[in-house]
Amino acid sequence: MPIITLTTDFGYKDHFVGAVKGAILSNLPDISVVDISHAISPFNIQECAYILRNAYRSFPKGTVHIVGVDSEISPENEHIVVQVDGHYFVSANSGVISLITSEVQPEKVVQINLPNVEASAFPVLHIFVQVACHIARGGKLEVIGRPLQSLRELRDFEPRITNEGKTITGNVIYIDNYGNVVTNIQKSLFEAYRSGRDFEIIARTTKIRQVHQSYNGIINYNLERNQRKGPGDALALFNSAGYIELAIYKSDLNSVGGASSLLGLNYRDTVTINFL
Amino acid sequence: MPIITLTTDFGYKDHFVGAVKGAILSNLPDISVVDISHAISPFNIQECAYILRNAYRSFPKGTVHIVGVDSEISPENEHIVVQVDGHYFVSANSGVISLITSEVQPEKVVQINLPNVEASAFPVLHIFVQVACHIARGGKLEVIGRPLQSLRELRDFEPRITNEGKTITGNVIYIDNYGNVVTNIQKSLFEAYRSGRDFEIIARTTKIRQVHQSYNGIINYNLERNQRKGPGDALALFNSAGYIELAIYKSDLNSVGGASSLLGLNYRDTVTINFL
Amino acid sequence: MPIITLTTDFGYKDHFVGAVKGAILSNLPDISVVDISHAISPFNIQECAYILRNAYRSFPKGTVHIVGVDSEISPENEHIVVQVDGHYFVSANSGVISLITSEVQPEKVVQINLPNVEASAFPVLHIFVQVACHIARGGKLEVIGRPLQSLRELRDFEPRITNEGKTITGNVIYIDNYGNVVTNIQKSLFEAYRSGRDFEIIARTTKIRQVHQSYNGIINYNLERNQRKGPGDALALFNSAGYIELAIYKSDLNSVGGASSLLGLNYRDTVTINFL
Repeated sequence: MPIITLTTDFGYKDHFVGAVKGAILSNLPDISVVDISHAISPFNIQECAYILRNAYRSFPKGTVHIVGVDSEISPENEHIVVQVDGHYFVSANSGVISLITSEVQPEKVVQINLPNVEASAFPVLHIFVQVACHIARGGKLEVIGRPLQSLRELRDFEPRITNEGKTITGNVIYIDNYGNVVTNIQKSLFEAYRSGRDFEIIARTTKIRQVHQSYNGIINYNLERNQRKGPGDALALFNSAGYIELAIYKSDLNSVGGASSLLGLNYRDTVTINFL
Repeated sequence: MPIITLTTDFGYKDHFVGAVKGAILSNLPDISVVDISHAISPFNIQECAYILRNAYRSFPKGTVHIVGVDSEISPENEHIVVQVDGHYFVSANSGVISLITSEVQPEKVVQINLPNVEASAFPVLHIFVQVACHIARGGKLEVIGRPLQSLRELRDFEPRITNEGKTITGNVIYIDNYGNVVTNIQKSLFEAYRSGRDFEIIARTTKIRQVHQSYNGIINYNLERNQRKGPGDALALFNSAGYIELAIYKSDLNSVGGASSLLGLNYRDTVTINFL
Repeated sequence: MPIITLTTDFGYKDHFVGAVKGAILSNLPDISVVDISHAISPFNIQECAYILRNAYRSFPKGTVHIVGVDSEISPENEHIVVQVDGHYFVSANSGVISLITSEVQPEKVVQINLPNVEASAFPVLHIFVQVACHIARGGKLEVIGRPLQSLRELRDFEPRITNEGKTITGNVIYIDNYGNVVTNIQKSLFEAYRSGRDFEIIARTTKIRQVHQSYNGIINYNLERNQRKGPGDALALFNSAGYIELAIYKSDLNSVGGASSLLGLNYRDTVTINFL
């Protein structure tokens, strides 16, 4: 029996998540329902895509992912199922799928068309649950809709290469629970342009000249504790999702602050890399 | 094997939820334990009832719902099990059950009376888990307690009809994750008094003359995007729980604000409907 | 099939928890994955230990607990598995295990040494999941590492006895969801020194002369409601974890305040008991 995951902007207090889980378990008593996140900022497609993109691949092929962000149906926002990379996404055609799977071609896209379903202010409960359970049971996509050609495409910020390949200009695409600042500059892009040169990462007034493989890469364990750089110092690393990330070693956003607050970086802000 | 759900004011940080789940799984390894919410405001019976009322019906008959809000036993707050609508609620006799199931008559009510159980500052762990697992295993209610006659009744705000049926005066009963404002005026009541008349919904200084079936009911998709009303405008709709709700289309309570902050509405505030 | 629990500082928004659960279920489709908490303050070993210490014993023997706080590997922070009290903890050697199990001697400690695993900025996903699934499958600890002698020990605050046994000076070790203030003074220590004497608990300017068995111990149910002490008054009780706790009956930290805000007590603050 496959898994159904939930990624929504429902929050953790209201009845929405409980109602959806109850409906899934009423349909399929033996299914595993897994929360990816219910703390997406309301209607924030980009944030939803970042989180789901970095979580879905851990799940086994065949997993059904319900995307409950901006899911009300309209003439401009059809309900769809996308089969891609061996996974199924039940979502609105808001563009979120193109941000999740930009590098992979969908295997199949259908527009959901259930008989006897009224318009609803809670489509995840009244429509997506039925569809997800149908797929989890091994049902065919053709039964619940018709092929859709026009999967809506959204484009996120893309890094720009200028100055004859000497400069990469990226943007902040996510700030995590620790206040760590994730840029859209992938390790592969960085390495492709670097060609062994020294470099400088500039984020507002901060300059960093090294990219670590881990957060504690900044610590020199050969020095005595009181002589070490470390907690409190800004560093750059290739994070586990493959992006260049700016962090403060062992930061706590709610007490001393994190990279976002200490370096003064917000979503969409520019981060520049100059090769020297 | 039935499901056990949890609705508490324990929050998501402390050890309480983990301890309770461990104890349930120690008793019944194959049970599904489902979180409805752990973010109920402390001791808030009304809020707990609103959330559980709108979630429990999604679960299959036979589900056992643990209610962990204001659950300390006292001479005025017995521990009870209520069988109603095919579901089981393990709770304190705080009145919360009467708010959840006000329209349905309980099939059975027992006062919990376990042998060899000491008073505890954590009754959900030490008493409710045992009781819920007993029921989930198919055990009889008679084994864990004796029939109770006096299920405590609480009354929530009720809409008032005045002005010879021309005015309905309701109250705000819940504010959700998006800042949407839920009133206690049900669609059925509204329709019963409307008789085809025009109307005006008044919430402080805001007047609304239409009730939609969905949040994007306010959008006229025949107009060009830049000519549309929509994001930022207040609307009323029949929400998925059957109540009249005031909302701002695509609001985000933490950034631009939601209906609660933008219309200045709090829990208990008055919302009036005048039929014209 | 055993259970795998998760206790981390990942928060509830990012992709981290979802990615970890997906990886576990990809390895072991039938496992139960249970969240203990993902709201540990970042890198806070003491807080993590308090929560896990009070939750793990509810789980059946054989449960595997993943500890995802400060888990980056370094020469001073090896990855380890500790078998203790019939449970397995997969963790970094940060000292957290000594705080969880200070009263129980570990049965086995191994340093994790997986072949073909690169250093990672997300060791819970890339290392702990593999190890936890190996153990949950019944695999031997010897296969994934070698015995470790030096389990790192941390010491939390300990109550001090002075004044010829007339004074116990403790500290605040945790503040819970209700703002209740947990001290490190255990019931057993208190009773050992009390010898039937009257006493005074002093927390800043508050003095309390009684310790209850439950939160509503402060209420005299023989009095009429309007004559009772109760909501709003400070009390002390032996909490369900066995510690002396200071509380306000039916407090709500986010509205009227809790013991922490109303009594002015923070983590590490002193609480003194004088026997009279």
